[in-house]
This record gives sequence, structure tokens and C-alpha cells, in this order.
Amino acid sequence: MRAYVLSTGDELIRGRTLDTNTSEIARALAAEGVTVIGASLVGDDEADLVAAIRRAAGEADVVILSGGLGPTEDDCTRRAVAAAVGVPLERVPEIADALRQRFAARGMTMAPSNLLQADRPVGAETLPNRFGTAPGFAMSLGNATLFALPGPPHEMRGVLTEELLPRLRRLLPAERRVVRTRALETFGEREATIGEKIRDLMARGRQPRVGTTAGRGVIRVIVHAEGSETEVEAALAKEEAEIRRRLGASVYGVDGETLPEVVGRMLLARGMTLAVAESCTGGLIGASMTEVAGISSVFLGGVIAYANAVKIRELGVDAATLDRVGAVSEEVARAMASGVRAKFGSDVGIGITGVAGPDGGSPEKPVGTVHVALDVRGTVTHRRLSLPGDRALVREIAAKCALDLVRRTIG
Amino acid sequence: MRAYVLSTGDELIRGRTLDTNTSEIARALAAEGVTVIGASLVGDDEADLVAAIRRAAGEADVVILSGGLGPTEDDCTRRAVAAAVGVPLERVPEIADALRQRFAARGMTMAPSNLLQADRPVGAETLPNRFGTAPGFAMSLGNATLFALPGPPHEMRGVLTEELLPRLRRLLPAERRVVRTRALETFGEREATIGEKIRDLMARGRQPRVGTTAGRGVIRVIVHAEGSETEVEAALAKEEAEIRRRLGASVYGVDGETLPEVVGRMLLARGMTLAVAESCTGGLIGASMTEVAGISSVFLGGVIAYANAVKIRELGVDAATLDRVGAVSEEVARAMASGVRAKFGSDVGIGITGVAGPDGGSPEKPVGTVHVALDVRGTVTHRRLSLPGDRALVREIAAKCALDLVRRTIG
Repeated sequence: MRAYVLSTGDELIRGRTLDTNTSEIARALAAEGVTVIGASLVGDDEADLVAAIRRAAGEADVVILSGGLGPTEDDCTRRAVAAAVGVPLERVPEIADALRQRFAARGMTMAPSNLLQADRPVGAETLPNRFGTAPGFAMSLGNATLFALPGPPHEMRGVLTEELLPRLRRLLPAERRVVRTRALETFGEREATIGEKIRDLMARGRQPRVGTTAGRGVIRVIVHAEGSETEVEAALAKEEAEIRRRLGASVYGVDGETLPEVVGRMLLARGMTLAVAESCTGGLIGASMTEVAGISSVFLGGVIAYANAVKIRELGVDAATLDRVGAVSEEVARAMASGVRAKFGSDVGIGITGVAGPDGGSPEKPVGTVHVALDVRGTVTHRRLSLPGDRALVREIAAKCALDLVRRTIG
Repeated sequence: MRAYVLSTGDELIRGRTLDTNTSEIARALAAEGVTVIGASLVGDDEADLVAAIRRAAGEADVVILSGGLGPTEDDCTRRAVAAAVGVPLERVPEIADALRQRFAARGMTMAPSNLLQADRPVGAETLPNRFGTAPGFAMSLGNATLFALPGPPHEMRGVLTEELLPRLRRLLPAERRVVRTRALETFGEREATIGEKIRDLMARGRQPRVGTTAGRGVIRVIVHAEGSETEVEAALAKEEAEIRRRLGASVYGVDGETLPEVVGRMLLARGMTLAVAESCTGGLIGASMTEVAGISSVFLGGVIAYANAVKIRELGVDAATLDRVGAVSEEVARAMASGVRAKFGSDVGIGITGVAGPDGGSPEKPVGTVHVALDVRGTVTHRRLSLPGDRALVREIAAKCALDLVRRTIG
């Protein structure tokens, strides 16, 4: 089954409100084995919406609309669906009564315009909305089924879950093909390098389908398998094993796992504790480790050593070394890692110092130069990084590199 | 001028990645007075993308694509634009050279597949990308101009700002109506309270238009003015003054300014330094302060005191007090603030300790209980907070509350 998603509202196409409904609807459909073939944002313009509905219904089996069901003139989904199907609107007494009761229950007077929400294209079925005033509806257009959902995300989610998905499942074959995906999270290799190692798996038309996405230093390899439940589970397991074999240690987790989660779990399994000494990242490693609930038996804390005086006094970095090689250096990173490990009595110490930019770069140490050192029970390793991107990205990727170094070192 | 926005990627139509590019592009276009007539998400399918490009170019004067410019097989924007226009791809030696240099500068070997990024439809103009490996491009299709931007949001933003918008402005009339917005950033009052204080300014149909949005503890009041450049500047200035008069100290900045930026600037102006002692926030305050470039003369660093032993040993928190009142208490927050201030010799010390959840709550100290203390040159103030939301939100708002307390105390 193929689906098309339409989200409506001037606020969306003007960029004033970020559309999250499309993504949420697409995820829910994918889980049911429905293929989303595309999605569009349409403004509060009836003619545009009629055209978009007709086009979507010509291409897809199911069209899901969200938004435009409110009580104002610019809410035109009811009128547009009626026009696209070629039927008039009718006022539905039961919806009008429910609206009046809803307002009365809150001790409020209903504005007459709210009755617009009791209109429905002739032939449509109401999708009740417990979460707000505008009910959704379902109806046929040619061979396609249209579902109209309210726009506010919590109302959309409620009607989607309670009303739309149960009806959709009745349209789907019992022994149906589903689509399941597995994401393998990788760090430390470039997207192109990963692409080459799995190029044949990513070939167009191959099943299962494999693709990559890159964001904030993490390259995600996504496997989409289609078939019966049993088939897809087997296909995903087989494909995951093959990708892991090829990518080796670059794969750190699955399905959205984060480096702090994985590192925290590894430290816990090994009975090891961690302390951090952060200069350029300013607390980012600590903040990311403590995003993980229940990490306190593993993560002791650290020193944010932004000023050089703090590096000297709190971490025992040698002042003469600092003068000689500068704060952004292998020597200082190593001293920070060992210094914080000694101070906190942890098994593992991280030291990190770099030039995050935009200023402070030099020919020898351009912006993006970061030194990471790791002291694991007295054995110190070091990496010099040259990171691309702006200040925020340099810091974020530097913090991830430090955790990735922990993962690869103790793993 | 009418524009259509196309974002590509299977991850978008499957709901695995939330598309933020469309919204950001739409906002940038609206600011230039360009009307976005619609937007679509298209998967990594060349035929679908060709059809979408042709349709968009038939409806709009400008079509802006993002995504699909990476180095892998499923990145099909270059091929799709070439097919839609009816021209072949050519390999561009200057782009290939730039790619090689980019890799060489980082001491890396370029994978051969990266050269796919040096392909360009014949007749296109390159939009250089300082932020990643994939350049964008611009070309004509019938009467429309197509712009292709890279997909990763920070790369898209960079190429949009530096390359696309200057070219777009040359296509626009000099004396045009523009839409400008001003956002007043507030912290410390609820959205409903703010809404009441400016209710008349928010009336429907009024010009300039005023609305509020709330996210992550910050309530933003947004003013939209439409007209000539001169008219909108005057209208925004007048409206900002009136809103500031009504909301007073809750307004901390404009147009996306952050609390760390504002607090950093205040400390700098007063010649004061800051150090932080973080338990529940685990480094988040330090990380947010050091997001601000050039903050090192103000922000010295801090202690991430996640373990109680660290609070005692590094910050001088009394072990007996810890035993008696627990780590999440006014006494401990005060001791942390004064302890870190003494240790780092700063003018201001922040101490923060709380229950971020999801576990660790109790009837007396439920999840969301946070104690913040501030030591400004020996004068200690304290706030007990009861914060809503999940672990991430509690931590983020706790960190913001601490900085807001600095702002209001030294302001």
C-alpha cells in the first residue's frame, strides 16, 4: 500500500511553525508496512489543496491530511476535500451537539464560527477527536481513501492512534507485507568510505534496501526490509551481520543509540569509572554522559578547565609546558587526562583541548584542531583531530570523538 | 515572486529524520518578500524527483531543493535536475580539485566516490559550500530558476545565506514589500501571563502582527511587520518598545539571543568572572556558556560534581550536611556555589543540584526538584525550583534558571 501525506497551513509554508506531523505520520505508516511515496506542505488555499488532494489520490492508495480543520475561514480542508471528491458539505447534528457540550462542560460560550467544525463532506465518516474541538473524517476518492486529521500535534497524534490506524489496518491484508528498518549507528569513518565498503549492498533495486544518512558526525546506515514479519526479521538480521562484518568497530549501536549510552554501558559492564577534563568542550562531554539516566555509578564528574590557570591549579598541568607548547597541544591534553584521573580516582580520564573557533586559529593550529587524550589506568593514548564545521559542530564532534576513543580503547 | 521548496531523502518521507530545512528555507524566503506556494518531501527516487522538479518549476519562479548531493548512489539530486532540464552531467575539474584539496588539508585520502560530488548538470552554476564536501548549484528550467542545496542543516544554512540569497536578491525588484520579524526572548514568566500582558497587541487582524511561541522554557514574543523597508523598521522599533515596557525584566534578548550570550556580555561589562559547580546538569551550564565565542575572559570553568565524593572533596561540601539533608538541598547548593567561587577565585559562583529523573524522586523531593544557589562576591542567594518535563527538559531548564538568576542578580 502506498500513502501520500499532506500537511496544510500558511504557518507551515511560511516557516513560522515547523511541521512535525508529516514525520510522525510517516513513521506510524512505515511501521504498518505502508510505503510513504511523498509528502507536501500546502498553504491555506482551497484551490491549491484541491489540486494536491487530487494528485495525491491519483498516485497513492491512502492520502492523509493534517490541519485546516479549525473554526476559522482559512481552515479549508473540509471544503477542499468536498470539492476534490465532488460532493457538498453537510452540517452534522451529532458533531454540533458534541461541540456545544464540550464548551458547556468548560463553562464557556461557543462562538457561532465553531459550528463550521460540524460540517463534513457528504459521504464521509467522522473520526472522533477526544483531544480538541475539530473531529477528523475519512472518505473515498476514486480508489484512494482520504483521512483528514486535526493539525495541532497532540490532537493529530490522538486521532491517528485511536481512529485512523485501526481503520487503516482493516484495509491492509492480514498476511501482509510490512516494512521494518534497522539503523546501524557508526562513528569515526566518513560517509564516502562507508559507502564504498557497502556499495554493492546499496545498489539501486536491491532488497533489502540500504542507505546512509549523515548528521553531527554520526553516519547512520539504514536497512529497509519488506516482506512478511518473519521474512523481514530474518532479512534485517542477515543484513545487519553483513554490514557489521564490513564496517567493523565503526558500528557503535543500533536504532538511535548514542555514544554516551554505549560508553556508559561498557564502563558499567567493566566496573570502570570515568572523569573528564574539558577545555574547548566546556562541559559538553559531562553534559552528554549525564543525559543518560542512572549513570552515576560510572560517571564521577570532572573539571571544566576553560582558563589556563584552572588547568595548572586543578589538573596539575605544568605551567612551563603550557608556555612552551600552548594550551592546544598533545602534552596538555595528556596532562589533563592523567590529572583528572588522579584527582577523581577514576579508572578512565579524558583530557580535551582545542581551537573551536571562530577566532583563535593559527597556521600551525587552525580552527578545528583538537587534542584528545585518554588515560586508562595509567596507559595514555592521544589523537590529534582536524574537525570541520562551525564552533558548535567542532565542539560537538570533538566530544563525540573523545567518547568514541573510550569505546574503541576499552572495547 | 513565487517559490516552491523540495526536500529529498528517504529518511524524511519515512519519518526517520525530521525535515527542518523546508521551514528554515521558507522563513528566509518570506523575509525577502518571496511567497512560498508549497513544499514537498520526495524520497531518494530519481523518477519521483524529476516529476516533482518539473511540476514545481511549472508553478513557481524559484525552486529550492535541499538534500541528495552526497557522495553515494542514493544521492540523486544532480541526476534528477539534469534529467528534468534535459542536459547531461559533466565532471567539473575545479570542484574535483577543491574536493581533493579539502581532503589533503585534513591529511585524508579521498574515496573515489567523492568525485560524484564534482558532477554538475551542464549549464549549472556552482554554489560553493565552505561547510562540507558537496557544493550546491543553480540553473534555469524554463522560466524558473532552480537552486540545489546540500541536505545537512548547517551546510544548507551556510550555502543558503552565503550563495543563494545574494543571487535571489538580484532577481527581486529593488523597491519591494518585505516582511520582517523581531523576536523578544523572555524567561521566567509563563506564556499565559505574558499573553495577558500583551493581549490587545495580539488581537487578530492588527498590524504589526504579534504572537508568542514557547519552547524549552523560553517564551518568544514575535512581531511581524509588512511594508517597505523603512515602514517595517519603524513599526518593529515601536512595537518592541511597547512590549518591553509591559514585560519588563522578563525580556532578556532579541532575535534568538541566548541566556549564555546575554549573561556573558553582562559579566564582561562588569568585569566579573564566573565559575560553576554542577551536579544534576552535569556540565550543561559550562557547555552552554562556552557555546559563546570569546567567553574565556569571563568564564573560568567549573567542577562537574556528579558523585557526592566530588562535592565533598572538590567543593568543600560538609559530609555531615550531605548525610543530614541529602545532596538535593538548599544547604548543598549554597556550599557548592561558595565552594567553586573560592576554589576558582571568581566573582560569581553557581551551585546546582537536583533530581532530573526519571528515577530518584521521593515525596519530599519529587523529580524536577532543583536547588540553585548563586554566590556573588560573598552574597549567596537561592531558589528552589519544581520543574516539569522529562530528564532532558528538567536539566535544560534548570541550567537556564541558573543563568537567569545570574542575569537578574547582577543586572
